[in-house]
Amino acid sequence: MKRTHTCGELTIKNINQKVILQGWVKKVRKLGAMNFIDLRDRYGVTQLVIDESKNLENIKSEYVLEVEGMVIERKSKNLEIKTGEIEIKVEKLTVINKSELTPFEIKDNIESQEDTRLTYRYLDLRREVMQKNLLTRSKMNQTIRNYFLKNNFIEIETPIFGKSTPEGARDFLVPSRLNEGKFYALPQSPQLYKQLFMISGLDRYFQIVKCFRDEDLRIDRQPEFTQLDMEMSFANDQDVMKSIEQLIKKIIFDIKGIKIKKPIRKITWKESMDKYGNDKPDLRFGFEIETLNYLFKDTEIPLFSNIENKSIRAICINSMLTKKDLEELTEVAKQNSVNILAFAKYDLNDWTGSIGSKLSDFEKKELIKLFKIKNESTILFVVDEYFRASQAMGAVRNKVAKILNLLDQDIMELAWIIDFPLFEFSEEENRFVAAHHPFTMPADKSLEDFDTNKENALAKAYDIVLNGFEIGGGSQRITDPKIQQRMFDAIGLKKEEIDTNFGWFLNAYKYGAPYHAGCALGLDRICMLLTSSENIREVIAFPKNSSGIDNMTNAPDKVSTLQLDQLHIKLK
Amino acid sequence: MKRTHTCGELTIKNINQKVILQGWVKKVRKLGAMNFIDLRDRYGVTQLVIDESKNLENIKSEYVLEVEGMVIERKSKNLEIKTGEIEIKVEKLTVINKSELTPFEIKDNIESQEDTRLTYRYLDLRREVMQKNLLTRSKMNQTIRNYFLKNNFIEIETPIFGKSTPEGARDFLVPSRLNEGKFYALPQSPQLYKQLFMISGLDRYFQIVKCFRDEDLRIDRQPEFTQLDMEMSFANDQDVMKSIEQLIKKIIFDIKGIKIKKPIRKITWKESMDKYGNDKPDLRFGFEIETLNYLFKDTEIPLFSNIENKSIRAICINSMLTKKDLEELTEVAKQNSVNILAFAKYDLNDWTGSIGSKLSDFEKKELIKLFKIKNESTILFVVDEYFRASQAMGAVRNKVAKILNLLDQDIMELAWIIDFPLFEFSEEENRFVAAHHPFTMPADKSLEDFDTNKENALAKAYDIVLNGFEIGGGSQRITDPKIQQRMFDAIGLKKEEIDTNFGWFLNAYKYGAPYHAGCALGLDRICMLLTSSENIREVIAFPKNSSGIDNMTNAPDKVSTLQLDQLHIKLK
Repeated sequence: MKRTHTCGELTIKNINQKVILQGWVKKVRKLGAMNFIDLRDRYGVTQLVIDESKNLENIKSEYVLEVEGMVIERKSKNLEIKTGEIEIKVEKLTVINKSELTPFEIKDNIESQEDTRLTYRYLDLRREVMQKNLLTRSKMNQTIRNYFLKNNFIEIETPIFGKSTPEGARDFLVPSRLNEGKFYALPQSPQLYKQLFMISGLDRYFQIVKCFRDEDLRIDRQPEFTQLDMEMSFANDQDVMKSIEQLIKKIIFDIKGIKIKKPIRKITWKESMDKYGNDKPDLRFGFEIETLNYLFKDTEIPLFSNIENKSIRAICINSMLTKKDLEELTEVAKQNSVNILAFAKYDLNDWTGSIGSKLSDFEKKELIKLFKIKNESTILFVVDEYFRASQAMGAVRNKVAKILNLLDQDIMELAWIIDFPLFEFSEEENRFVAAHHPFTMPADKSLEDFDTNKENALAKAYDIVLNGFEIGGGSQRITDPKIQQRMFDAIGLKKEEIDTNFGWFLNAYKYGAPYHAGCALGLDRICMLLTSSENIREVIAFPKNSSGIDNMTNAPDKVSTLQLDQLHIKLK
Repeated sequence: MKRTHTCGELTIKNINQKVILQGWVKKVRKLGAMNFIDLRDRYGVTQLVIDESKNLENIKSEYVLEVEGMVIERKSKNLEIKTGEIEIKVEKLTVINKSELTPFEIKDNIESQEDTRLTYRYLDLRREVMQKNLLTRSKMNQTIRNYFLKNNFIEIETPIFGKSTPEGARDFLVPSRLNEGKFYALPQSPQLYKQLFMISGLDRYFQIVKCFRDEDLRIDRQPEFTQLDMEMSFANDQDVMKSIEQLIKKIIFDIKGIKIKKPIRKITWKESMDKYGNDKPDLRFGFEIETLNYLFKDTEIPLFSNIENKSIRAICINSMLTKKDLEELTEVAKQNSVNILAFAKYDLNDWTGSIGSKLSDFEKKELIKLFKIKNESTILFVVDEYFRASQAMGAVRNKVAKILNLLDQDIMELAWIIDFPLFEFSEEENRFVAAHHPFTMPADKSLEDFDTNKENALAKAYDIVLNGFEIGGGSQRITDPKIQQRMFDAIGLKKEEIDTNFGWFLNAYKYGAPYHAGCALGLDRICMLLTSSENIREVIAFPKNSSGIDNMTNAPDKVSTLQLDQLHIKLK
């Protein structure tokens, strides 16, 4: 290579060396008789100094230069960057390529609309913050692969062209040219393939793999996303959780330098719903949700009287929330189908707020005792059906933390959520469906009656949660064909449907399967959290916008009739 | 984990240890009063010994067992396997899962049809040879990633959902639900994305990535295939070849233990076509093709007389080919549109064969001199238009090596093919098209006139060849918008087509691009060669058959009308 060094490596140790650098013009400036250029590449910035005899009028920001010169000591040093003690006295300067004025300045904090950034993504990716995000992702991948290879896992690729099966999200389809009228489906996950690897005796499998779900897009969803997928034989749910726990701690240490020594907390799904109002609790802050029906059973407060089967759910914030805060929080409650967010404020002297003045002495005393109130505090209440009240309070709880600025990105709070329900009731289909997927092993205590007592059946499934985001999950699998049959019966699959959709898969379990369990981690989301990014698009080189469109290439796009003809399809 | 060891690790050092093993029954046999079971897992086989008090009648091949017992020294040792000096005296035996009779025996050499193997791929992958192939692939991937990460490359993922563009093979399409009437295309390679990374200043990119081409399938093609893709900034064709050369040597060393010290030979495309009749020469053997028109200019052999513009092309084999050999070779020539394969045999005494007796003394002497004949030899001749004759002779040359059993899989002969033509003429479209792709830089000597002298224009493109297979290729890219415009003009693209299909891409080059070059390697094929496999399906966990069908899942398959409706398409 022609360059002798990158723009990020020369220091005082290189004084008097002749060097060749190549990079982009970050800035040109004139100071007295001298011209200065900051030359930038992925590795850093180096200052060039050029005497006035050279005409630099034509050189502008983002030009690509090659310079030859001598490393000399700088007069005014910049100790914040590695190269800040030296500069290059340029002897020869060549313009490798020119640049038009870029649509936005190449710097970390820009005010461009995201659409503009995505349209010119190749320029957006010149910004240091974006390069750091991609570098972090590359590093994270390597930590993951090294971990699994060290532990005897094999990396195996699974097909992108698979078969469409029900019981999941909507599939993306690919029409087949060679097989008229037929379609491949893109995998929502390599679930069935990895289970087959265990039947094959491959023992331990992992893969970093693209998966696809044709769902409506949200802030943290893309039509294609990347998973770390793994499966272990002769391993149960506990073994997999142990392995993933080690991995995630290693990732956090490698990327953030944070050493998590304690075992990751295990919280049952029921406890999580009860204390945090959701199954992905953010544990960077407290404010656990309490049920106060017992406390208000003789109350005179109308809101809490005659509530029948409803629950009074409350959290206590050790801070006096403002009127504006409370308005915002009420809005959050409303978005979660609960109209009234009552509150009581206590300034260690006096109770105020929508119900503060109406509290009896007994209620006041009990609230102070229950919430261990020692500072000025605000208690927030909702009254509603238990799950609705809990979910609304969970959302309020998260919003409070945002308002109070408690979401420190350098704290990493992990939790396992366990004992998930095995089924959930689909109002749409009017039947129970598998909450995780229909290959999930029932919990030991549900094994007897999971197919008759579906409401209460629990699963050997587990999710891992980081700072309020579900970052992965898995389960122990059913390896006994009889249990699998009961599971399919329980979700109301008919023999014909089973044969058509899963026959080939169930057949495999007739030939000697080990017990096995696995897990998948959402790498886009994990990388988003590790880099303190606002959304997953910030850690994806070329993401789609919320309509599934690539602003840069304009994909998806129309195609020719010839192309459709060859695929034996036409537009509706 | 419950097992204390795998089935592949216990040795004489573990004598008297209590162990727990889990695995598959490879074989059950009774010897006197004792029962023996070979227990198998991915890591090896361990012999179990069970006294006759235990009833083993129900235990059959491929059952999954867990055994607890003591490691003892074997009486009759098997020194060919690591565990061959010990056996486990079983104290407790549990059947984890049963197995029906498998459709084929789980052993390396089986006679099943490939269709059967693919239908029961999960059992096929139990065979040691298949597990070794997948392990090799996992190891190869890791060698590749370690190499690039060590050299400051970043691993970056590119989208699977892209835009359909002309100037390549046929795209696979994915109908968009959210954007009616529009389609994503699956990438044939991440070519444009990786070039954009260079414009972004990411400097060095690599990725192991799935690519897709909707072509008719052949023995070494799959609809989805895996590439190592890389690109380097401030690097030219030579820099990239150097980097890939180091990598491929490292892969061969890591996997095969073969150390290749010599630099890889560089052969121009023209020389390769001339000497070997193709652009992917197998250099494990000689038999270079010669043009003999000068030698036969005064000949009396009718076949070689009055041949006008045709070429007499010949190879000499240092062996007396049999009649059967020659019939097979003639068949190969015919498959390559050349009807007559003439031959002369020389037993150091006498000339025989279809033209042997007709050779003049001068011709005999010159042939001996030219081919440096020292042993019994057979010379093969074809007469035809130069390229057709060369290609036929290239195919004959490869077939000879197969017949003579010269294709030693443990010899790894690499070559770079360079100086490719920039264009090739498409009879179908009646125009010149880019031979590599339209972003390939013309060779220095073609830079002036590549768009006017298309027949002779050469490219800064390079292929790497291993044992007669093209395993990868790349090029230096056009980074000057003016040259790119001339290229598009040369292949007859109209302004409108350019704007629609490549406008977004060309625009990026206006903002300061470094010069850059890259390469892609076909990992399925490389792994096939490293494992001495017959075809690429042997190194892919779940491949498609030659009709693009997965025999196991029966993908692609019909989908519901509802699914098609949601995608705004219908069957034709």
